Amino acid sequence: MNHPILVELIRGAIVESVHRGSIAVVDADGSIVLSVGTVDRPVYPRSAMKMIQALPLVESGAADAYGFGNVELSLACASHSSEPEHAQTAGRMLAAAGLGEPDMECGAHWPLIGAAAEKAKIDMARAGENPSQLHNNCSGKHAGFLCCAKHSGMQTKDYLNTDHELQRNIVATMEDVTGEAIPGDQCGVDGCSAPTLAASLKGLAQGFAKLGTGTGLEPIRAKSANRLMQACMAEPWYMAGTNRFCTRVMEIGKGRIFAKVGAEGVYTGAIPELGLGIALKADDGAERAAEMMLAGVLNKLLGKDTDLGEAISALTTRPINNWNGINTGEMRSVGV
Amino acid sequence: MNHPILVELIRGAIVESVHRGSIAVVDADGSIVLSVGTVDRPVYPRSAMKMIQALPLVESGAADAYGFGNVELSLACASHSSEPEHAQTAGRMLAAAGLGEPDMECGAHWPLIGAAAEKAKIDMARAGENPSQLHNNCSGKHAGFLCCAKHSGMQTKDYLNTDHELQRNIVATMEDVTGEAIPGDQCGVDGCSAPTLAASLKGLAQGFAKLGTGTGLEPIRAKSANRLMQACMAEPWYMAGTNRFCTRVMEIGKGRIFAKVGAEGVYTGAIPELGLGIALKADDGAERAAEMMLAGVLNKLLGKDTDLGEAISALTTRPINNWNGINTGEMRSVGV
Repeated sequence: MNHPILVELIRGAIVESVHRGSIAVVDADGSIVLSVGTVDRPVYPRSAMKMIQALPLVESGAADAYGFGNVELSLACASHSSEPEHAQTAGRMLAAAGLGEPDMECGAHWPLIGAAAEKAKIDMARAGENPSQLHNNCSGKHAGFLCCAKHSGMQTKDYLNTDHELQRNIVATMEDVTGEAIPGDQCGVDGCSAPTLAASLKGLAQGFAKLGTGTGLEPIRAKSANRLMQACMAEPWYMAGTNRFCTRVMEIGKGRIFAKVGAEGVYTGAIPELGLGIALKADDGAERAAEMMLAGVLNKLLGKDTDLGEAISALTTRPINNWNGINTGEMRSVGV
Repeated sequence: MNHPILVELIRGAIVESVHRGSIAVVDADGSIVLSVGTVDRPVYPRSAMKMIQALPLVESGAADAYGFGNVELSLACASHSSEPEHAQTAGRMLAAAGLGEPDMECGAHWPLIGAAAEKAKIDMARAGENPSQLHNNCSGKHAGFLCCAKHSGMQTKDYLNTDHELQRNIVATMEDVTGEAIPGDQCGVDGCSAPTLAASLKGLAQGFAKLGTGTGLEPIRAKSANRLMQACMAEPWYMAGTNRFCTRVMEIGKGRIFAKVGAEGVYTGAIPELGLGIALKADDGAERAAEMMLAGVLNKLLGKDTDLGEAISALTTRPINNWNGINTGEMRSVGV
């Protein structure tokens, strides 16, 4: 594994830090359009597979039964900043199924991703509040898991166990979407205690091309994937939060780009109108690197001659400012 | 720059992420004892040079004039967690020189490094407080800068300007300690707005060997360096904070190991009894990587046959637990 440098951080006149990584851009038939580094070894997509984990919620009819629209479906695919409306929406989803926060098995944490989470945390502390499992950045996914299990007549307790019918369903869904077998030794435990399933970047990219276009999927899966992807693009704030990178990319994309971060430097994405799926990982797991890599590959795929391409190209560099607001350098995408 | 993998993160059965980097271990005469990767290109040590930036405070007589002991001198070298006693000590240092928080030019931020900072932040928010510049993790360094300037009859305003006599003095001190010229294009601006000066890992490691042993330094500098290093090792909590890695390493070392983190994945260190200095950088700037690399190199240098070596070897792996406290993998030092 000797991946190229794809992100540079500049301070003054010196390249201070670099990030290496690998990227796959693949169409729904599995043709590789762009490949950087190794794209055929198993990688945990972590939260970048949340849309796949949310498919049973829609396919089972649970989402319809509980009246979920774009907001709830976007939150089911989210790694959110635990801003108040994120936590409240997760609570409303559970309530629709007659469930509540004590049914969740994801653990509680203070809001933790980004400046908006920082503000949410300080506001909560000032109000004398403590975080619940609804504030877990994965609470929408867990609400979706529980709603799907309840509607489908499965037990809700132990819904994260690898032997639970829901999780076995998700493994089968992941195998169908990526076209790869997921043996037991490619199953890890995520930060929220859900099983996380490793697939290759090539398989993940092809999978997101299939999810974005419907090509190669059973009709109900194609329809459900389309509904989830449209929901995320229509309500990108619920999929991440104020000024988060996923949200910004999808706000710029206006329904033409899907993007989802995962822990340890992963991104998945799709550009449905080009028929393409994207999967990438920064070797070192840095989120800042994965963001720059996504900007770089989107810029490459979209070109600079359109309004969308130009807007995306602005994301390929980012100024680094210090506590006094003084510019000390920049981060930039390279090598794509 | 094609550095080896020095840290691995394991999740389940898969290596999820890796960190590359470079390490220099050098004696005071400049003999390289251990070298990994490129050690002769300029690297910003960032906060890992704070002990060098604190030398003028002692050499000028300011530390004596204001009655500073181990606590204050350790804080002058610190990147602290902004726990209450850190901020209060910085305030007392300034007051001793008839100065105060408004004289600082480092900017304010909420406590930000580690779990203890998290707690400090929430406690402050609950008490309705807001962070001041005393909570900047570099506030001890800035208090030291200001006290040195005041005692030496320099103006205190604009004390971070590269043309200020104090900063010119620090450049000369850095050149003497590292044995390297620091041209203007190796001067960047740090997060706290202070100039940060790039030197090679080899020069930095030799410098910390000199600081730890006194070899190759003018008597007043040798004496001042010894006093600062002893202060940090005697009061390691003031140099970082509760459960921080610098603090833990120096608590284990009991006066035999000095260690200081810098932003973007840097560590400097010294083992005075072996006459050695250490400097390392994770390519990607990750603090977790720099910590594991330091543990790995200390383990290599100290062996496992002594109590100290055995205690350090326990730092070369670290379990990764999730929000429910479930173990999901581990991080480990490799390749040293």
